[in-house]
Amino acid sequence: MKTILVVGDGMADRPLRELDGRTPLEAANTPKLDAVAKGGVCGIMDIISPGRPPGSDVANLALLGYDPIECYRGRGALEAIGAGLDVGPGDVAFRGNFAYVDDNGLVIDRRAGRVDGSVFEDYLSDVHLDRYPDVEVIVRPTLAHRLAVILRGKNLSWRVSDIDPHETGVRVLGAAPIDEAVGARRTADIANELYRVLRETMSRHPLNKKRIEAGLPPANAVLLRGAGEAPAITPLTELYGVKGACVSVTPTVRGACASAGFDLHEAPGGTGGVDTDAISKAETAERVLPDCDFVFVHVKGTDVASHDGNPDPKIAVIEKIDAMVGHLMDHVDISETYIAVTADHTTSISQQDHTGDPVPVAIHGPEVRSDTVKSYSERSCAEGGLGRIRGKDLMPILLNFQGKVKLYGS
Amino acid sequence: MKTILVVGDGMADRPLRELDGRTPLEAANTPKLDAVAKGGVCGIMDIISPGRPPGSDVANLALLGYDPIECYRGRGALEAIGAGLDVGPGDVAFRGNFAYVDDNGLVIDRRAGRVDGSVFEDYLSDVHLDRYPDVEVIVRPTLAHRLAVILRGKNLSWRVSDIDPHETGVRVLGAAPIDEAVGARRTADIANELYRVLRETMSRHPLNKKRIEAGLPPANAVLLRGAGEAPAITPLTELYGVKGACVSVTPTVRGACASAGFDLHEAPGGTGGVDTDAISKAETAERVLPDCDFVFVHVKGTDVASHDGNPDPKIAVIEKIDAMVGHLMDHVDISETYIAVTADHTTSISQQDHTGDPVPVAIHGPEVRSDTVKSYSERSCAEGGLGRIRGKDLMPILLNFQGKVKLYGS
Repeated sequence: MKTILVVGDGMADRPLRELDGRTPLEAANTPKLDAVAKGGVCGIMDIISPGRPPGSDVANLALLGYDPIECYRGRGALEAIGAGLDVGPGDVAFRGNFAYVDDNGLVIDRRAGRVDGSVFEDYLSDVHLDRYPDVEVIVRPTLAHRLAVILRGKNLSWRVSDIDPHETGVRVLGAAPIDEAVGARRTADIANELYRVLRETMSRHPLNKKRIEAGLPPANAVLLRGAGEAPAITPLTELYGVKGACVSVTPTVRGACASAGFDLHEAPGGTGGVDTDAISKAETAERVLPDCDFVFVHVKGTDVASHDGNPDPKIAVIEKIDAMVGHLMDHVDISETYIAVTADHTTSISQQDHTGDPVPVAIHGPEVRSDTVKSYSERSCAEGGLGRIRGKDLMPILLNFQGKVKLYGS
Repeated sequence: MKTILVVGDGMADRPLRELDGRTPLEAANTPKLDAVAKGGVCGIMDIISPGRPPGSDVANLALLGYDPIECYRGRGALEAIGAGLDVGPGDVAFRGNFAYVDDNGLVIDRRAGRVDGSVFEDYLSDVHLDRYPDVEVIVRPTLAHRLAVILRGKNLSWRVSDIDPHETGVRVLGAAPIDEAVGARRTADIANELYRVLRETMSRHPLNKKRIEAGLPPANAVLLRGAGEAPAITPLTELYGVKGACVSVTPTVRGACASAGFDLHEAPGGTGGVDTDAISKAETAERVLPDCDFVFVHVKGTDVASHDGNPDPKIAVIEKIDAMVGHLMDHVDISETYIAVTADHTTSISQQDHTGDPVPVAIHGPEVRSDTVKSYSERSCAEGGLGRIRGKDLMPILLNFQGKVKLYGS
């Protein structure tokens, strides 16, 4: 037995006035998702707990079966791990942007004209802080204007605030300890010193001089945010003996799955946007399925469309997910494969943000107790046989169908 | 107000191909169980947590209202208590079999031809270990080839592995510590020494010489398994002031109920098998009901049939349980009695093992908020008014109807 879990990022929503009181899932044409619901067992799921909106990082840890309140240690390490970096015990990792900051310390462009940060890779491969000779600093450009930073040394803590002010026209922030955690003061000081050193040297970098000559904003600062340590989890490979694969381009999702011990795959044409090639994701899942027990397939576009506040592109991505699920149902042996569909959180188009509403979940497969639900949506699934579950419960529910959850007791 | 809780061991199941996609509960003719569901409030229940398969020991502790993760200390003590032995604080108890082990230490017959171990009772009443003079050893034959062993002394721990290899043709195992628990190493050494001493003396026992002469396998070894301490629980008598009774022949169930402070009863003709006399159990429950508040009635046969992988005997036992519940409904004052029906876990016929799927529960009684469910099954009960609850929640739900749960707060 195998399982494919399809996650539409932020796919769940609230009823929208512009859709005559329907949610995007209710308004979209989803015959294949409906078939999963009709043949399967359905329910609704609170990713963390009722009413609590989860971040993407927390949500994916929950979907992988972990208690997010217990294991969460910030987003930075997940993204760094997802970008292929090794984040060891005690390391603190940040996400960051190459940005343009003016001489007064005001953020002019948080993405430095969406600069391709990889041009600075050679220079950044040898960053060190004279004031902290015992701390190893790894700075790695990832996608476009984004980068990952890892601090490695003793007495570090992820409990530090962002340098990135998350808006333009304001001054860069100083990192500060969030609480009394051991090492938080020191880690904030190191992050601030790293900001200072990078700002000084990046300002003088020849590539930035060229950008200014070309009328482009220089990438003269690195705005760090999302400090994190590797999540405090035992891989699912160890917990359940399950060999997993992840099909996603999204660094946080990849980082969470890699932390759970899953192999990472990218599908050609998978973009993380509304233009993603969802059929290619299905084909990738189909290709890797024979070599593993569990495939986690993630589509980001629904969330992107939701944050933009427009139902039409969200509906379009939902229909892509529908086609993707149809492709899977047609191409895998459904007498040997469980197919589950859910969302990692509700992203409300009206709020243009994550909300704490539950998400629908449907599980199709040989031995599920199919219920009377006939379509896949937030409201229809609430009438299903799963009832209302928690995010962390989904993974053991799925692995139980595969006989992978050990008996407790005797 | 009184309550009778009827537990069909492993009664819940998954949809089966050979039953046209129905579960045994759906395929069986169960007018009386359906009447309980129709007049009552129904739901589904995760004995431990969603997806996690419980052992029988853990499951019965949960049904009695205890958090099984917190209180579970192995099966051995529950069985010893169920067999009428006194297991005190610090004692470690094992289950065991009289077995035939050859001169090379290979297990030839795990049950020594299903020997009646009681013939060794006198001899076993005086076992002691010269190497461990401070440890009291109690060896008591129980049913057929089974026995219970209690070690009593200082610095003992239940965190030791089995001597019983659970199969024939292989060597007997040495008990070993499972983890770093204080006393585990010492307890394993004591168990191994007990094995050695019993093997030596039992081999020379005149009754075994007679068995060999008669062509029977000698009971020349004692295979210990399931080390346990008494569960860390406060009796329900103390917690809720409830006087309980247990009608079961199954040692683990009897042990759990005795630990909860319940009186133990056996019904004439109650066998623990598919041939059990369920009406006799109903009559016993009816007889003891006037003297107590709560009767726990357990039928083992559904689980036995499930492990054998054949739906027909399981359906037959379900129909016996139906008749038993019908007898109870007819013979007790249902205006003064709550009757609840559930299972201690799902035992999947297709998997021939316990699985982590939820079990159906129905509660009939004077003040329940009856719902729209019309039949008793895994799927129908999922639509009921109880929603999805945990195993440990059932007992307070039932005792609340009896007014036995104290107000928290003021």
